[in-house]
Amino acid sequence: MTPSGTTSGGAADPAGQPAWELLLPAAGAPARRRGRALQEALREAVRSGRLAAGTRLPSTRELAADLGVSRGLVTEAYEQLTAEGYLRGARGAGTWVGGAVRVPGGGGSGTGGAGGTAGADGRGVRGPGAGVPGPGVRVDFRPGTPDLSLFPRSAWAAAQRSVLARLPHRALGYPDPRGLPELREALAGMLARRRGVVADPERLVVCSGVAQASTLLGFVLRARGLRTVGVEDPGSPEHGRLFASTGMETVWLPLDGEGLRPEPLAASGVRAVVVTPSHQFPSGIGWSAGRRAALLDWARAVDGYVLEDDYDGDFRYDRAPVGALQGLDPERVVYAGSVSKSLAPGLRLGWTLVPEELLDEVVERKRTMDLGNPVLDQAVLAEFVTRGGYDRQLRRCQRAYRERRDALLAALAEHLPGTGVSGIAAGLHVIARVPARFGPPERFLARAAGAGVALRSLEEYGTARPADGDVRLVIGYAHLAPSAIAEGIGLVAGAVGG
Amino acid sequence: MTPSGTTSGGAADPAGQPAWELLLPAAGAPARRRGRALQEALREAVRSGRLAAGTRLPSTRELAADLGVSRGLVTEAYEQLTAEGYLRGARGAGTWVGGAVRVPGGGGSGTGGAGGTAGADGRGVRGPGAGVPGPGVRVDFRPGTPDLSLFPRSAWAAAQRSVLARLPHRALGYPDPRGLPELREALAGMLARRRGVVADPERLVVCSGVAQASTLLGFVLRARGLRTVGVEDPGSPEHGRLFASTGMETVWLPLDGEGLRPEPLAASGVRAVVVTPSHQFPSGIGWSAGRRAALLDWARAVDGYVLEDDYDGDFRYDRAPVGALQGLDPERVVYAGSVSKSLAPGLRLGWTLVPEELLDEVVERKRTMDLGNPVLDQAVLAEFVTRGGYDRQLRRCQRAYRERRDALLAALAEHLPGTGVSGIAAGLHVIARVPARFGPPERFLARAAGAGVALRSLEEYGTARPADGDVRLVIGYAHLAPSAIAEGIGLVAGAVGG
Repeated sequence: MTPSGTTSGGAADPAGQPAWELLLPAAGAPARRRGRALQEALREAVRSGRLAAGTRLPSTRELAADLGVSRGLVTEAYEQLTAEGYLRGARGAGTWVGGAVRVPGGGGSGTGGAGGTAGADGRGVRGPGAGVPGPGVRVDFRPGTPDLSLFPRSAWAAAQRSVLARLPHRALGYPDPRGLPELREALAGMLARRRGVVADPERLVVCSGVAQASTLLGFVLRARGLRTVGVEDPGSPEHGRLFASTGMETVWLPLDGEGLRPEPLAASGVRAVVVTPSHQFPSGIGWSAGRRAALLDWARAVDGYVLEDDYDGDFRYDRAPVGALQGLDPERVVYAGSVSKSLAPGLRLGWTLVPEELLDEVVERKRTMDLGNPVLDQAVLAEFVTRGGYDRQLRRCQRAYRERRDALLAALAEHLPGTGVSGIAAGLHVIARVPARFGPPERFLARAAGAGVALRSLEEYGTARPADGDVRLVIGYAHLAPSAIAEGIGLVAGAVGG
Repeated sequence: MTPSGTTSGGAADPAGQPAWELLLPAAGAPARRRGRALQEALREAVRSGRLAAGTRLPSTRELAADLGVSRGLVTEAYEQLTAEGYLRGARGAGTWVGGAVRVPGGGGSGTGGAGGTAGADGRGVRGPGAGVPGPGVRVDFRPGTPDLSLFPRSAWAAAQRSVLARLPHRALGYPDPRGLPELREALAGMLARRRGVVADPERLVVCSGVAQASTLLGFVLRARGLRTVGVEDPGSPEHGRLFASTGMETVWLPLDGEGLRPEPLAASGVRAVVVTPSHQFPSGIGWSAGRRAALLDWARAVDGYVLEDDYDGDFRYDRAPVGALQGLDPERVVYAGSVSKSLAPGLRLGWTLVPEELLDEVVERKRTMDLGNPVLDQAVLAEFVTRGGYDRQLRRCQRAYRERRDALLAALAEHLPGTGVSGIAAGLHVIARVPARFGPPERFLARAAGAGVALRSLEEYGTARPADGDVRLVIGYAHLAPSAIAEGIGLVAGAVGG
């Protein structure tokens, strides 16, 4: 259980101790929390600079032996942090501390600077009425809405009662525009734990959701002289509309399978981008570690900012969610999330983590927009998070949505054979590519609509117009029962001759 | 009970019937509601054009006889509508329909156009932390906060429970940016009844309070090319700050005892003003009917807009509240109010009534700012308004605040004799003018602070610097128990040698 001297080159910290010592408390955590604790400790060691960029890590076998934990736990930690961009590795060639991290006060030096960039994806923001079926719609596969019937009404009502019973009178007065202190504290802890962000409650601003976080940032950047913002192509057109309301023009930046393509980003002249690296909307990819690092290099090189729209980062079905980009450089990344996918969009309750440099301006914008979020819902959410209700709700949704995703994949395989589903197993939607023989796309969509099935084509979310005749769909499944999913895909197949 | 032929010149409507017939249903209302019903019917008759501008009304004695109601009721109705600007009258010379009304679809022609203007006053918007006593403060007379202990916690909790039990799942989705339909309906009815506004639910936008209503309007007007907004002097500096955040510069416009002075307004070049005609903040005057009409004439002449901040219009202690300016011309007046004084500022829940011409732009702004207000509080307030809880709450506050105002006046008379209190008996604050012998002002305020009493000087709210040596204070009393009020004024008197 004590660290041996098997540290690899550079792994000793200034005090001369092997840095692996930092990981020991994590290794001593109870078994069920040991894996996560190890990852958190490793992340923190990289952030703090105690593990400097370029440091070669011990092999998984060596470190497991040093720490007295299973080798699988170490392998998993290396993989997780590699996906998030903290570590770099090549099969058979070992694992190093990457250069992507830049946390003030920490020493994550970072060499990087390859001038690359990374993909922009967008969702979490959305116009009114989405997901509300129109007349004649039997099954609505349009993405963007969670299952509203999963809202934990009785638990929420109990928390409301408790809040009204205990809240001091003065809390009902004009609020702190940054949000209720107890909520900021609770959210910071939850986000650090679940999303791997650097979450200082002093940097967290409660807002009405990712949409407001976008508008707040847009106004601040516009006042600083920026006039354009890059958005992912394909991506959510809503990001562009929100920034347009602040006087900023949108530049579409092309994605590939790893993230934003570096050259078009570098050539665009923008100094701000909106991205969804954990689960790109709508393409469904998770950004590669290389593109995450490249995006941050770009942001540093142009003195720019990245808005990370973490609209569904909590929902990953095949592995632990990849930590947020913000954890790698909290001074360049504005992180935004909300309860819209986990509880209900109607709560209009979210958060943004803001670089120190922009904080005062964002808070003053928030103040002039609405003086701050309503206090009662804030207090209820704080209680919900601190007493475990929020984690329970996420687990509940996770189970339901995984089951629905499986139901969708099975229905597609059965009724529209040959359909490919791309993207990671995550979130509330998939990209399905239906073979050309069921098309062409316009007829496919028209016939589906005729059969009472509302579908959205991928083309609605960007500038690309593929010519292969395949039908590319963005299918939201989270709000539909498995039986409705099967019925809907069956109706489509019947209408298009599947 | 039937109308006789005693109608005065011009009072017959196009169908040839005496217009007084319009008032008959009101006259037949149950006794306790008869007075209000008569006023509403008379207001509506003027708005609809059935009583055209210039029409001479019967004497109070004649109309009372025609309608079979008491003469006092008619006198009261004439006085009320004269104060609001619907009617004009001169002692002994009779009463006419005024020219101020301009309601589309109605025929309230209006001659007006005298190029006058009216006073700007401002509150209802406020920075964070107001009313929160600092360390060492024993009694805090700073204005702006209601008594937060009057918030009806158990009634609100019951409404929350009922809402969570009945709300359909889809109501938890992305909201209508204009607000929950049931709340807009409920508020429109309540505002028409209580504040005499023309309240079409389709024109009502639920927002987070008067502050957001100001910012929404500011952005819309700025996008239309306006660059300046007039505010009342004295007035709330917060209005200027909010409009500044939208890119508009503030022009202070001087008040006198009746409202905004016409000449400086006309000379200012502004095409938008923010005013508080029902109870000017901070001076406490109610605008005269003449200045109300003149302001609307000005707005029409310059193709401008008036933001009416009705921050405390529900609280009047000596008579029925004077109806809102918006009722006279809903196409020129943007009306804004909130629950901040009646329930709690922390709810961040308010409303704005918007001219047709600006409606789409205001709604789109609201959408990009936050997608709409949170739905649960909206549903709770709707239930509260429709089931009578809101009226009960207003009555409760009204009783408490009237008692506190009386306690303040008594304490001033006892401890600081010679102090004059100006302004109408309304709202949550008074202007007190303490004789120069207790001064000078700086020393007075310093000594009060030294005794643990927080006070605000009128000079903080505008540009005027009177040289008479009297101490002019803006004293908020609503949040203090009568005993605390007496204690606070006693402490001041002890410190300044009263």
